[in-house]
Amino acid sequence: MTDPNAVPLLLTPGPLTTSETTKRAMLRDWGSRDGRFVEMNVRIRRRLVDLVNGGDRFVAVPIQGSGTFAVEAMLGTMLPPDGKILLAINGAYGHRMARIVEMLGRAAVEYETAEDTPIDAAEVGRRLDADPAITHVAIVHCETTSGVLNPVEAVAVEVARRGRRLLIDAMAAFGALPLDVSEVACDAVAASSNKCLEGVPGLGFMLARREAIEACEGNAHALSLDLYDQWRFMERAGQWRFTPPTHVIAAFDQALTEHAAEGGVAGRGARYRENCRILVDGMRAMGFETLLPDAIQAPIIVTFHMPSDPAFQFQSFYDRLRDRGFVIYPGKLTVADSFRIGCIGQLHAADMHNALAAIAATLAEMGVTHCSPVPVARRATA
Amino acid sequence: MTDPNAVPLLLTPGPLTTSETTKRAMLRDWGSRDGRFVEMNVRIRRRLVDLVNGGDRFVAVPIQGSGTFAVEAMLGTMLPPDGKILLAINGAYGHRMARIVEMLGRAAVEYETAEDTPIDAAEVGRRLDADPAITHVAIVHCETTSGVLNPVEAVAVEVARRGRRLLIDAMAAFGALPLDVSEVACDAVAASSNKCLEGVPGLGFMLARREAIEACEGNAHALSLDLYDQWRFMERAGQWRFTPPTHVIAAFDQALTEHAAEGGVAGRGARYRENCRILVDGMRAMGFETLLPDAIQAPIIVTFHMPSDPAFQFQSFYDRLRDRGFVIYPGKLTVADSFRIGCIGQLHAADMHNALAAIAATLAEMGVTHCSPVPVARRATA
Ligand SMILES: Cc1ncc(COP(=O)(O)O)c(C=O)c1O
Ligand SMILES: Cc1ncc(COP(=O)(O)O)c(C=O)c1O
Repeated sequence: MTDPNAVPLLLTPGPLTTSETTKRAMLRDWGSRDGRFVEMNVRIRRRLVDLVNGGDRFVAVPIQGSGTFAVEAMLGTMLPPDGKILLAINGAYGHRMARIVEMLGRAAVEYETAEDTPIDAAEVGRRLDADPAITHVAIVHCETTSGVLNPVEAVAVEVARRGRRLLIDAMAAFGALPLDVSEVACDAVAASSNKCLEGVPGLGFMLARREAIEACEGNAHALSLDLYDQWRFMERAGQWRFTPPTHVIAAFDQALTEHAAEGGVAGRGARYRENCRILVDGMRAMGFETLLPDAIQAPIIVTFHMPSDPAFQFQSFYDRLRDRGFVIYPGKLTVADSFRIGCIGQLHAADMHNALAAIAATLAEMGVTHCSPVPVARRATA
Repeated sequence: MTDPNAVPLLLTPGPLTTSETTKRAMLRDWGSRDGRFVEMNVRIRRRLVDLVNGGDRFVAVPIQGSGTFAVEAMLGTMLPPDGKILLAINGAYGHRMARIVEMLGRAAVEYETAEDTPIDAAEVGRRLDADPAITHVAIVHCETTSGVLNPVEAVAVEVARRGRRLLIDAMAAFGALPLDVSEVACDAVAASSNKCLEGVPGLGFMLARREAIEACEGNAHALSLDLYDQWRFMERAGQWRFTPPTHVIAAFDQALTEHAAEGGVAGRGARYRENCRILVDGMRAMGFETLLPDAIQAPIIVTFHMPSDPAFQFQSFYDRLRDRGFVIYPGKLTVADSFRIGCIGQLHAADMHNALAAIAATLAEMGVTHCSPVPVARRATA
């Protein structure tokens, strides 16, 4: 890939590689009042609710912007001013929710585990027992910081048992890992167009329990992020409150059609699990070590420890891989020196094998022979 | 246009018709750390500052979302918690700023004129004299509600003379009407990708005076809308804080190239003025009356009074025109029964002539013979 116009595959947590047909859906300008555009929005919202098995109990409310806008809008809209939230944190996206809640000026307490450790549902229960003032709990489904899968099902049971409400940042896993709101009791789920649903970035959404959102008038801290208002307006007028990102929406509609054609959450999830398995097996065969044990690894993004070999230099590794057509991702961990490789987007088994071949060739080129994080010397004496 | 797949021209204030080449710029997935994507963002930000002749004194800060997100982010970031703002209002977008400021919980006073009446700069001066606590003034450059052009230059003089700060919602006119910040003293200007710059929707931006934004740390009411934070992060890391709408940005880059090729603000403005002249002349020749006298009409969108002819029924007129390939816009006025036709986007003289022909044919089809808002009878007796 010395051709600067060649387009690399994105092995990242987003923006990610989308299908040609999804991108081509953007080749048309839609008027926001066009009957077919209005239908498209109805269809998208219906499909999103169906993906979580929300029936008539849940509603979908889209919002312009990135995933963070959707998470902030969910927290601002669903958490009443006199509420108190328990934030379950094990990575950057949990911390981001904490920062949002701080800006909201709402009461909050944090329960934090290490980045390589899932949230413990029983501990959430104990924290709730200890503080009856807590009204809500927020959790990240798949924490992209490490790639760890949090046990939202078990957490939901603890939260519901105590009559509290659950808000889920499902960004990274939505559409690839099952999340059935008839089993996982929650008030709202936030996600975006540009992760496992493989749309282009620029659109987020919240799926909210109808009875919960009905009580949320006037909660929001910002007009643009008021999802109660957005929901009411859409229900009444069939329109977005403010200019919708029409091209991004058309691409999302196409992406959802392709998601359904692949077999929905089960089909998409199966492809990503296979991508993840090929990646992890191949990397381990070269000597790399994953941060997480397989049991808590989501098939979304995998964190690898940096090799101890002094010939390994991440920026050079990254640049060379990019020149071979594969973009990976730096680490975001505070606990360990690492980098990440994503399994999501339009990536298939052959792409993962090609990526592994490119990694092997790059390591050879760099003269890296030892990919374990444990130095040779230390290992020898151990 | 009985073919349901035919794409109508959008004679609306947005989303609007964009060029094929602008849309085709979206056919590629960009990684957000890609060197060429980073360069693209630097180029876009530089060009936006140059459009207002901002030199090194101004900085461009982009934000995900629609224009309202940019306006709200500008107000939230630039107005300190102990500030007080005078809102100059003559339409829906002025009222929207008032609602935003109310949600911000900042002190505000309103100066409102009728929707068909420009803001009076001298009156702004008097209001500032009467209330020394006012720190900021906000105004809409072209109020899309009616299409009226507000005298931002004269208002800026009154504001600056008294040492207060000016914030401008330049959404509808940005890129087509001159706004030179070396002459129009202001702290910030908000606009979006999808008006006169003819990009696709999904991206807004603020142009801020560097010295002013430097003092704005911690002002914002929402993390997603914190343009101080967004600016600092971009300057430091060359990256967006949160996933950027990469495809929308690539389209915007292309749209800005086409804007420059057309002769920048002067060239774009000249085409729109010609569009507007053809439209107004043609509509008047049919008997329609504009809400505004020509002197205060911006060449962006034109408000026409509803014809008094009982055979004229707006929804039917709208639908029939749409079937002929032209989408117009309902009125948003409270003062008069009206509809609007836009002059912006990829519309050229021939399109305006074709639109007029379609309007004439539609009126004939509907049996409308009298397009003046003044009933025949009343006119006859007058
Ligand atoms: C779990 C999680 N939450 C929130 C976000 C934020 O999304 P965005 O970058 O689109 O704002 C991400 C992005 O990677 C994420 O993985
Ligand atoms: C003057 C003005 N301000 C703000 C907006 C809001 O922009 P958006 O609809 O993209 O949120 C518009 C949209 O037409 C506008 O014309």
